[in-house]
Amino acid sequence: MDKKILGTNIVTQVAFVVNDIEKTSQAYADFLGMDKPEIKITKEYDQVKTVYKGKPSTTRAKLAFFHLTPNLAIELIEPDAEKSVWRDVLEENGEGFHHIAFVVENTDEVIARLEKNNMPLIQRANNYAYVDATEELKTIIELLW
Amino acid sequence: MDKKILGTNIVTQVAFVVNDIEKTSQAYADFLGMDKPEIKITKEYDQVKTVYKGKPSTTRAKLAFFHLTPNLAIELIEPDAEKSVWRDVLEENGEGFHHIAFVVENTDEVIARLEKNNMPLIQRANNYAYVDATEELKTIIELLW
Repeated sequence: MDKKILGTNIVTQVAFVVNDIEKTSQAYADFLGMDKPEIKITKEYDQVKTVYKGKPSTTRAKLAFFHLTPNLAIELIEPDAEKSVWRDVLEENGEGFHHIAFVVENTDEVIARLEKNNMPLIQRANNYAYVDATEELKTIIELLW
Repeated sequence: MDKKILGTNIVTQVAFVVNDIEKTSQAYADFLGMDKPEIKITKEYDQVKTVYKGKPSTTRAKLAFFHLTPNLAIELIEPDAEKSVWRDVLEENGEGFHHIAFVVENTDEVIARLEKNNMPLIQRANNYAYVDATEELKTIIELLW
């Protein structure tokens, strides 16, 4: 594998897929001693241009972020019923861990290096990309920019 | 659930169970642009007094830590063949995510609060404890002290 393939080593999110984001975000809030965050929803296709496995997708998800440190958040994701990188994990593994995220520069170059190293792009939009690193790193990786 | 059940919100580890820690730690080193860390092995029973589901256990594991920030490490765990909280996840889910960890004070009080809130203790030794928070938080939680 290429050295310094990613260009950063700062994990910015640890994300979990859930069936009921209201319930699980309340459980995290109580556990962590934090306020329950506002639940957000990803934007519509016209704005984010989501592409799942090479095809345009209107999938959307509800999101909750617990900002633990300036660098790191726990993210909860409740996907809609459409096929997506979120729905796939929920259906295959059930509720639980989904990805770790990194903020990168020169995203297209990073994605090209990852794809060359057995970590194929599986979903992207105009502000994030997911690569399937389950073989090499045993996890999905999200790139943010 | 009780408020401030944990007493901290700083995640210190994101941990994955793997079958071949040499191979996967090299993949992470290349991906992150870091040196491959020395592989450690957990100490023998006489020193750590591991208890798995209420019974003494001689289980051990190989460990690799990638220290990303002063607060946060990625941990890779290759368990031995004995029953353990590590082996259980590897056999049930395959290689992948295992837990997030927090450093806590007054460990016994924290464990008691977690158990009262549907997060039972499943393994502990003299320097860590795992609770099963898969129902409430969709993950195993490790407590360190």
